[in-house]
Amino acid sequence: MFANIRVVLLNTSHPGNIGAAARAMKTMGLSRLFLLNPKQFPAAEATARASGADDVLADATVCSDLGTALAGCRLVIGASARSRSIPCPIIEPANCAERLVAESEQGEVAILFGCEQSGLRNDEIDRCQFLVQIPSNPEYGSLNLAAAVQIICYEVLNAHRACLRAGSSQINQEHEPVSADEMERFYEHLERVLVMIDFLDPDNPRMLMRRLRRLYNRVRPDENEINILRGILTATEQGSRQ
Amino acid sequence: MFANIRVVLLNTSHPGNIGAAARAMKTMGLSRLFLLNPKQFPAAEATARASGADDVLADATVCSDLGTALAGCRLVIGASARSRSIPCPIIEPANCAERLVAESEQGEVAILFGCEQSGLRNDEIDRCQFLVQIPSNPEYGSLNLAAAVQIICYEVLNAHRACLRAGSSQINQEHEPVSADEMERFYEHLERVLVMIDFLDPDNPRMLMRRLRRLYNRVRPDENEINILRGILTATEQGSRQ
Repeated sequence: MFANIRVVLLNTSHPGNIGAAARAMKTMGLSRLFLLNPKQFPAAEATARASGADDVLADATVCSDLGTALAGCRLVIGASARSRSIPCPIIEPANCAERLVAESEQGEVAILFGCEQSGLRNDEIDRCQFLVQIPSNPEYGSLNLAAAVQIICYEVLNAHRACLRAGSSQINQEHEPVSADEMERFYEHLERVLVMIDFLDPDNPRMLMRRLRRLYNRVRPDENEINILRGILTATEQGSRQ
Repeated sequence: MFANIRVVLLNTSHPGNIGAAARAMKTMGLSRLFLLNPKQFPAAEATARASGADDVLADATVCSDLGTALAGCRLVIGASARSRSIPCPIIEPANCAERLVAESEQGEVAILFGCEQSGLRNDEIDRCQFLVQIPSNPEYGSLNLAAAVQIICYEVLNAHRACLRAGSSQINQEHEPVSADEMERFYEHLERVLVMIDFLDPDNPRMLMRRLRRLYNRVRPDENEINILRGILTATEQGSRQ
């Protein structure tokens, strides 16, 4: 169950939280844990807090860069406590879970949780097509990391059960978005061309690439579309070389 | 908010769980904690795990009999991990939360959590009108006490919000897409540039513009984003004129 859903914990400070998150995942039937630069792992405290979910910890993938953690993912959703100024569509946990479950039938998907103190960084949000915000007390929104993982995984199980009841997944997509790594190659190409045509000043890039990422992450281009976009970039390069 | 909803923890063994439950409650806007015969309370570990929710702990009511904890309650729901032979209607967390929120408008209601090892005893279930069962992995249903409290309180906040917005729209986006005519001007500009850089052959346009329209119509760019896209087009024109 949920073999295509990755839970990715970024820069987690406390090993106890990793263990508690593994337990939270397993209670809801999820098992694929990715750890990006955990401060301390493996750790006795992680194993202790995992309780009977030590198999999830043992199978966890530890990576040192986000690209590896998200390789091959067609949908990436970030968990965010705060409102952001840069537009990235904000969805609720139930909607997030429906999307994860529906799209995981076609391929790999990921849900990201930032570090305990500061949440997701902007460069991490750059990889996300959606941000999920867990509703909370406006005066005290301090959800523990494992508590946030618990709620999202609970909604994933809910969405799965709703699918089973309905007979099939709710969101039927003929649209097949390209993977996170293919998007990265597109962004690299785009940035190169923008520098070449003097639209992007490498010494003063401001927020340009970030804004363009938010825009194209919303689009979720498919193979055909990414080929068109890459083709336009290549034609632009050739035009300005002449 | 939720002044009439009591969270009642029965015979809790670990003070850390009491603290974590208080934190879980407060993140979702609940504050009325009742402790029936806690093994150890107050306790430093409870305060530590409560994080900023120590006010919930400080205001907690400690009782030695269930009757006192439930005095004046018009609705009592028990949280239960196991199926019971004793007939008591079993409901899901969302339904439980709707009932708690709806009835709390008329008077006091309570949600009971049994002790960590064995859950609710039969004499405790005898006080309940409903049992709420949190869906879980059939092979590993071992939710931590605070995780169970977190999920129920999350659903309570969800139910409350659903009441508030009853009638209003679900997705609130501050994102303000540009008008259809502004999109048309963008498409005209895009087409002109694609012809200029020899990517689009006016004599054999095929489906190119249609595909690009589908893509950018999905984005629904706002003013700022359309300015960036138009700016890139202008820079491309200038680059290929040189």
